[in-house]
Amino acid sequence: MISKTQLKLINSLKLKKNRNKTGLFIAEGEKVVLELLSSNIKLHSIYCLEPFLVDNKLEISEINVITEAELSKISNLKSPNKVLGLFEIPKFSEVREFDDMILALDDIRDPGNLGTIIRLADWFGISTILCSTNTVDAFNSKVIMATMGSISRVELIYCDLLEELKNMDKAIYGALLDGDNIYKTKLQPDGVLVIGNESNGISEEIQKVISDKVTIPQFGKLQETESLNAAVATAILLSEFKSAKLR
Amino acid sequence: MISKTQLKLINSLKLKKNRNKTGLFIAEGEKVVLELLSSNIKLHSIYCLEPFLVDNKLEISEINVITEAELSKISNLKSPNKVLGLFEIPKFSEVREFDDMILALDDIRDPGNLGTIIRLADWFGISTILCSTNTVDAFNSKVIMATMGSISRVELIYCDLLEELKNMDKAIYGALLDGDNIYKTKLQPDGVLVIGNESNGISEEIQKVISDKVTIPQFGKLQETESLNAAVATAILLSEFKSAKLR
Repeated sequence: MISKTQLKLINSLKLKKNRNKTGLFIAEGEKVVLELLSSNIKLHSIYCLEPFLVDNKLEISEINVITEAELSKISNLKSPNKVLGLFEIPKFSEVREFDDMILALDDIRDPGNLGTIIRLADWFGISTILCSTNTVDAFNSKVIMATMGSISRVELIYCDLLEELKNMDKAIYGALLDGDNIYKTKLQPDGVLVIGNESNGISEEIQKVISDKVTIPQFGKLQETESLNAAVATAILLSEFKSAKLR
Repeated sequence: MISKTQLKLINSLKLKKNRNKTGLFIAEGEKVVLELLSSNIKLHSIYCLEPFLVDNKLEISEINVITEAELSKISNLKSPNKVLGLFEIPKFSEVREFDDMILALDDIRDPGNLGTIIRLADWFGISTILCSTNTVDAFNSKVIMATMGSISRVELIYCDLLEELKNMDKAIYGALLDGDNIYKTKLQPDGVLVIGNESNGISEEIQKVISDKVTIPQFGKLQETESLNAAVATAILLSEFKSAKLR
């Protein structure tokens, strides 16, 4: 059963302002919910079909068993999964230490791209992502789904990206079409890598603080103005940075 | 204006069997349609809003100017773009020459993943992709959109993948969790790279014909059973194969 109050709360969380007000976010899908349950992110409540409960032998008091019809009322998916969970948005430490490599996102707008990028950061051992204030909210449920649980291990800091980069004592790499061939560039393992917006790339202001422009050369017959999807480009670039010391 | 017959034709093309019967497929979105118009793929007809016609100064007789209401009736998108085009499914040559590197997909099911992989093949100069018969159809409109026009430059061959691979005189690489570290493996530039299904990976049968298992090591704290999204993994692996001779 799901009460009217619960229904209202869950549906309100589709908006960022309500997520910020309540400190809660939605996670949908078996894998993501199970990953979050085993992480240090705090559970608020779970709404699931009977089989989810039986399959996973969960002993948690915050579980509400609901019907498929109820699930489809609260789900953001066309084909709802078996479970939807509400979790608390984690609070990260105020002390910022930027020893390792950092990823910086300049207005990534597509939730799927941001989720994939968070997953990639987790894979490549990057614990901090700086996001411009216009980057899509990381606690949007589509982002959460694409992270496949990685949201619990990567800290996203929404900030005035230009100011933050200006004050940074690191090499600042930017993914730009006119950059140096990434495969032939000597890469600092503790630099910052800036990824730009899906349509417009890195903003002119931020381009000015970039110390090293890099690009993924193409081996095919595309025109010079063509580019790769932002998440796919991030995958290739992070792979290059992280593998540099292994070669 | 759009006639009832046109409406019926367009909506019928959402199904693969009707695409095969008519030899036509749907492309949605300005970028994809313009790319296909400038390619060697043959146009059947275009349905667009007035601004698309004006902006692009097209002089083609097969254009139908329609209203937004009409466009939303034929579009597969929640927020329809300005244009939808019907094009002829290209016929590729019967002669198969596999001189260069080949990508092989064992049951990729997600249209976005397949589209991204086709785009990547184009970027990395790979002209042939072998697909198992259960791989999602490349002329599905979601795939076409994700290819961003690359469908005109990459040939997809749907086949009995196991038989095709058995008869191939090449190194056959497979992306598998227990493979050798891709960054430390000497890669043949003209091999075959097999990518498996999103949930189940490469099937057991096909694993038997793989000569070299490779994997992308993770640098973070994920469990050993975790993996990257299929399209993202393909991006990193192709990047490694194609950059090997540059280093």
